[in-house]
Amino acid sequence: MKKINIGIVGLGTVGTGIARLLTENSDIISSRLGGELVLKKAADLDIERDRGIDFDPGVLTTDPYEVVDDPEIEIILEMIGGMEIAKELITRSIKAGKHVVTANKALLATSGNEIVNMASQKGVSLAFEASVGGCMPIIKTIRESLAANNIHSVTGILNGTCNYILTKIATDGISFEKALDQAKAEGYAEADPSLDVDGYDTAHKLAILSAIAFGMEINYDDVYMEGISAITPMDIEFAAQCGYRIKLLAITKYDGQAVEARVHPTMIPCYDLLSNVGGSMNAVTVTGDAVGDMILYGHGAGMMPTASAVISDVVDIARSVLAGGAMRMPILSYQADYIRKIPVKPMDEIFTYYYFRFSALDKPGVLAKIAGILGEHDISIKYVHQTEHRVNGVVPVYMLTHQAREAQVKKALDKIAQLGVIPEKPVLIRIESPEEEKS
Amino acid sequence: MKKINIGIVGLGTVGTGIARLLTENSDIISSRLGGELVLKKAADLDIERDRGIDFDPGVLTTDPYEVVDDPEIEIILEMIGGMEIAKELITRSIKAGKHVVTANKALLATSGNEIVNMASQKGVSLAFEASVGGCMPIIKTIRESLAANNIHSVTGILNGTCNYILTKIATDGISFEKALDQAKAEGYAEADPSLDVDGYDTAHKLAILSAIAFGMEINYDDVYMEGISAITPMDIEFAAQCGYRIKLLAITKYDGQAVEARVHPTMIPCYDLLSNVGGSMNAVTVTGDAVGDMILYGHGAGMMPTASAVISDVVDIARSVLAGGAMRMPILSYQADYIRKIPVKPMDEIFTYYYFRFSALDKPGVLAKIAGILGEHDISIKYVHQTEHRVNGVVPVYMLTHQAREAQVKKALDKIAQLGVIPEKPVLIRIESPEEEKS
Repeated sequence: MKKINIGIVGLGTVGTGIARLLTENSDIISSRLGGELVLKKAADLDIERDRGIDFDPGVLTTDPYEVVDDPEIEIILEMIGGMEIAKELITRSIKAGKHVVTANKALLATSGNEIVNMASQKGVSLAFEASVGGCMPIIKTIRESLAANNIHSVTGILNGTCNYILTKIATDGISFEKALDQAKAEGYAEADPSLDVDGYDTAHKLAILSAIAFGMEINYDDVYMEGISAITPMDIEFAAQCGYRIKLLAITKYDGQAVEARVHPTMIPCYDLLSNVGGSMNAVTVTGDAVGDMILYGHGAGMMPTASAVISDVVDIARSVLAGGAMRMPILSYQADYIRKIPVKPMDEIFTYYYFRFSALDKPGVLAKIAGILGEHDISIKYVHQTEHRVNGVVPVYMLTHQAREAQVKKALDKIAQLGVIPEKPVLIRIESPEEEKS
Repeated sequence: MKKINIGIVGLGTVGTGIARLLTENSDIISSRLGGELVLKKAADLDIERDRGIDFDPGVLTTDPYEVVDDPEIEIILEMIGGMEIAKELITRSIKAGKHVVTANKALLATSGNEIVNMASQKGVSLAFEASVGGCMPIIKTIRESLAANNIHSVTGILNGTCNYILTKIATDGISFEKALDQAKAEGYAEADPSLDVDGYDTAHKLAILSAIAFGMEINYDDVYMEGISAITPMDIEFAAQCGYRIKLLAITKYDGQAVEARVHPTMIPCYDLLSNVGGSMNAVTVTGDAVGDMILYGHGAGMMPTASAVISDVVDIARSVLAGGAMRMPILSYQADYIRKIPVKPMDEIFTYYYFRFSALDKPGVLAKIAGILGEHDISIKYVHQTEHRVNGVVPVYMLTHQAREAQVKKALDKIAQLGVIPEKPVLIRIESPEEEKS
């Protein structure tokens, strides 16, 4: 059986998972591939730790250059993460004519175009299924299964930490801070959770998905981003009463002119399967002109699911190596000469549905004033709910709107804040795909 | 731009959809493929009907052999369905060295091994993504994205007609017959609905999925099959009260020794995303040792979703043709020399959970007798519910069991029937993945 040498740089969680799968599942991999993946070199700063894997002698090294400079290695798996060193190792591998597989969404989001162009010109593969949605084959599905579709939108739950926290707030009625503590205790959140809970990680992934869905350059800088730290049990409870759940959604849409690319807490109707995705699971809805809505669901992170996605990329590349070597798949799913700079719509131009919660002083005429200002800004109220229940001397006023322009919403909320009857900052949560939009 | 000639035999619904996509979405297809798919010939008995497509002169023909014998055509799309003629056209195409794409699950289920072997030996591609699950990339996902996984099970809603009817019975509380009439009226069911409602179509698809998931020959004959015509609103209502929904599931599992392959109405818990798949939609859960549970959801039928899946296969093959032509993908997802005959477990050996509904005479001691017989057969009752509400002189007794052996269940039900206190045939519905199984 033909052998293909691969090298791993970085034996952290995912790197170790890959080495485990290459060992434990080597038979199944060979039976599909018709060739043998041989782990020739694997580099990590710590090569003493017991990873529960019997590495062949000479495989482990502390020097990543020993991996990327090995002339017998055809495929390099970059699993160290981070920016500078990862980029240096990837570009060095590409220049040496090696194929590269990575799960490094932060690097792809920020330096992806440069790396993609380099690989494209060199004629080597650059694959990154594991960078978005863990084991879910969202990249392959968009790139290959939807090849005949004009893709209209991609909407997803792409961060397991945030989904775990939002699920905890909803089921246990606890605060964001308490839910975050639980997520840390159970290993779902890092000591510094900002990358996850402030939306950066989701935005990195969305930048990659927008590119491969619409044939545009990766544009992370223009992704709008709002995290989940302001979400309260009050808002989740009201959402539930109205038939909605709150998820951190990555949303990208293309109308043929410009792209929307935004990450923010979003109310979605309970009948939408995405709203039923609980815990740390991920899911993505892709909408194409031929297929309509298609959903993928699976583990968005974790050692073995992510390792499985990395190896699926390796097997894809190995098949082409075995079949003769020509690079048959465009890296960003569109041929390089079709990839354009598509403008990203400023948030002000977004036209969507809104949920507001105002903490209003319990005085006559306050609701009339709020409603008046909304009306002046073409924001039409669909539903309003005010209780007598005072919280800290104010009463909550809940509102759902019909479609409105984000710029107008901001202006109206500013003006309402100036009324002097809303002591706290109003809460704003955007709503996606309610009934009326579909009909 | 390089051109690849393709030919279609059969311009029915799906064939017409393909021709439409090739025309209307040719730009997007080329921008992904880096080549042009040219519809050189398309055959149908009726070439006069206006299909809303501007075919180039000379493309349409009433003679399918003009398509499959055209030496300039590299990829043949078999879209006529049925058995003999379809098989003849496919094998003739393969012998001529052409790649073949088909959506013909009935043919693959019954003659698939022969056709696969022929294509494999000839070194041409045979692709059939559209044969299972419409636009959902279930074949590609198992074959490529899960290449590093030992697959444990595949469980799915694979027939939109049945799911539409079951959803109707549940939401409107109507009988199977009335729901079927509605499905016919709305174009979801054929005049002769047996292929769908008796489970044949789902069993065809399951036979294909078992093969590609586990590396076994296609074995349709041993798939157990039960349709949905006996499902009543009573059973659906009781299921809902216990937190279950009833779906026609295709279930295949592999324990390393033998395969389960069965199609039957199944109660699944409401927290399972599959239970929330309504209307004519399809969904599949695949469980692998590395990825855990992964779900795909989408339109399981229909002109454009199915056409999209067919073209995804065509693009895959065209990429390899453009890159040099070697067949890089094993047809049944495992290399030919790894494919074995794996035995299918007889239904008697299935070990699962059960729901029973007995229509019992309202006499003292009846419940004790039923429970006694179940106990004698090692069937442990988890939940029992009997109302005073008489229906036609009998009272319904509902039961949920712990795991039991199918052979024992059959014996027990036979014995209960002989008691003479159950005037109607007991209702049996199997239950999949309840809480206790997961824990």
